[in-house]
Amino acid sequence: MTSGSLYCVTLAGGSGTRLWPLSRAGDPKFLHALTGTSASLLQATYIRLAPLSTPDRTFVVTGTAHAAAVARQLPDLPQENLLVEPAPRDSCAAIGLAAVLIARRDPTAMMGSFPADHMVRRPEAFHEAIRAAISGAQDGRLMTVGITPTGPETGFGYLQCGPSDNGVMAVAEFKEKPSHEVAVEYLRTGRYLWNAGMFVWRVEAFLAELARQQPVLSEGLHAIGDAWGTAEQDRVLGETWPTLPKISVDYAVMEGAADAGLVSTVPGDFGWTDVGDFDALGDVLAEAEQADPAGNVVIADAHHVPVLRDCSGSVVIARSGRVVSMLGVRDTIVVDTPDALLVCDRKQAQEIKSIVDELRQRGADHLL
Amino acid sequence: MTSGSLYCVTLAGGSGTRLWPLSRAGDPKFLHALTGTSASLLQATYIRLAPLSTPDRTFVVTGTAHAAAVARQLPDLPQENLLVEPAPRDSCAAIGLAAVLIARRDPTAMMGSFPADHMVRRPEAFHEAIRAAISGAQDGRLMTVGITPTGPETGFGYLQCGPSDNGVMAVAEFKEKPSHEVAVEYLRTGRYLWNAGMFVWRVEAFLAELARQQPVLSEGLHAIGDAWGTAEQDRVLGETWPTLPKISVDYAVMEGAADAGLVSTVPGDFGWTDVGDFDALGDVLAEAEQADPAGNVVIADAHHVPVLRDCSGSVVIARSGRVVSMLGVRDTIVVDTPDALLVCDRKQAQEIKSIVDELRQRGADHLL
Repeated sequence: MTSGSLYCVTLAGGSGTRLWPLSRAGDPKFLHALTGTSASLLQATYIRLAPLSTPDRTFVVTGTAHAAAVARQLPDLPQENLLVEPAPRDSCAAIGLAAVLIARRDPTAMMGSFPADHMVRRPEAFHEAIRAAISGAQDGRLMTVGITPTGPETGFGYLQCGPSDNGVMAVAEFKEKPSHEVAVEYLRTGRYLWNAGMFVWRVEAFLAELARQQPVLSEGLHAIGDAWGTAEQDRVLGETWPTLPKISVDYAVMEGAADAGLVSTVPGDFGWTDVGDFDALGDVLAEAEQADPAGNVVIADAHHVPVLRDCSGSVVIARSGRVVSMLGVRDTIVVDTPDALLVCDRKQAQEIKSIVDELRQRGADHLL
Repeated sequence: MTSGSLYCVTLAGGSGTRLWPLSRAGDPKFLHALTGTSASLLQATYIRLAPLSTPDRTFVVTGTAHAAAVARQLPDLPQENLLVEPAPRDSCAAIGLAAVLIARRDPTAMMGSFPADHMVRRPEAFHEAIRAAISGAQDGRLMTVGITPTGPETGFGYLQCGPSDNGVMAVAEFKEKPSHEVAVEYLRTGRYLWNAGMFVWRVEAFLAELARQQPVLSEGLHAIGDAWGTAEQDRVLGETWPTLPKISVDYAVMEGAADAGLVSTVPGDFGWTDVGDFDALGDVLAEAEQADPAGNVVIADAHHVPVLRDCSGSVVIARSGRVVSMLGVRDTIVVDTPDALLVCDRKQAQEIKSIVDELRQRGADHLL
């Protein structure tokens, strides 16, 4: 049995390409206040996790470019709990580093890992799900939080679940992002949940599976852990980190663990969204009663309120200081930033990546 | 009979509110290159009139704010032929000043007056129409150039015409901008032409009508004319100009002259447009084969080509130096300038004035 509260690890990575030009590599999604409050997604995540943990058991993993911004947005985070990756090595290295360091402090620790850029509308229901996951993880299972699907989304991975046992379901298989037809079938059976990238486990249980399935990664992370807090920390981290396999925790550990019967899930129905694109953001803000009577949602400071006339269902983000004026516009996303403007049909919000790709081909990386 | 070529007067006034935010009070429509070439509308007008006149018989009337820009855009215009109004007094004062100065040089002169911000696609047909108007004006008639309507437009005034006599038709009446139903009826009869604000007359004939109908305006202009070229020019102009009635030449002279049977017109079918709004601009550029295969027209410099994906029928003007990116956008106007952005349904292009009005109410006059 574990002692005390949860060790919470927040992964503050990823740029949120589908929220370009608001979200950039240099100013990623998790740093932005998108929720209709002044809190960034990162800050909202930190606040949401607080009742489950304590500041000294709260970790954030981020990249070198965002360490300062994360430190300033989270002034209560102990500085030694801000883990700065020398380079992006995907989620398994990030989670694994936190796991190794937590295990050195408390081998019996219960650990949870959460993305920094998701939104939860009902925190109490979220806490209930995480407490159920902690329960399920006591015997060594790797727990996921499976989101109860609200529609046949094709942008998420799915968890194929067995029957419920006291609210906990075995995960038979991780399913890649499906086609629409397959997603509809998933929903019909009622046995599939969305994989939201949230995990709860005893840190030893995770590290054992990591060692079994990813020995190179495991050895590298333990070498870093052995040097942590010594004069060698920076040298070992800097030399070892670039050699670690770049792989997501789903591929590296969770899929194999599911095959071995070690993965379970608790269903979560807590108003979750990954705010994956501006269309989703518009829905979120409308549900939060931030829309005008015509269904437009606007993010702008008080000195630069856009002029909207005869517009409906649109998402307007005014961040350039210029006046934004719109006339007769329907269901359209307008994102105005100092160096880039996006105008996009809401139905094509998922395809914004294609704009980013074209700009990259043009060599306009400074805009990305 | 007149001697020699036409005296051409170009009125470089008006800000073109329906082309906001491209066109501003401080940077009006006639200074902009909107025609798919590098020539501004003013320069295109000057070039179009050149075969009818000579530089020393070419005049431009403009306001104080635009004198420098006009002088630089038209380096061949003799400096004494750039007439700078101390303040805007509408078209009758502007045309009347030019007429008085032309009459002092040559009382038998034939004079034409033309807006600086219209477009003509077939200059040869335009020249033919103006030569026909010159012919019609020899006996003292005040000639208009009536545009053959291409549709039941409600944004123009109409000329109600009598039967054609050698291509010249008497104008029975000037008609205000009609309702759609009335415009449809006008077209059905085939006896109505658009009033494009182009006039040709013997300068004495115009001045006689001006003296008859607008004695105050006429006396003021002649007082200015008497002082012109003397040490008193600036003082008399500065003192007299503000006292002149502010009235358009249509109301002040042409309507009354038509009642007196003095006005005729030549029909002109030379690909005319007043480029009155961005929808019309899109049509013009598409007809000039400036559209992409999906019907989008783009005005941007070579270093800031917008990214358009799956867009159609849109008008994109990128003038801010920022990257403009559009995805899945249909029949939409996007005008990006350094301090203001407009996104507008093409069907509502005529209503852009409502945006300008709202910004004025907000006190944002610096944007107008």
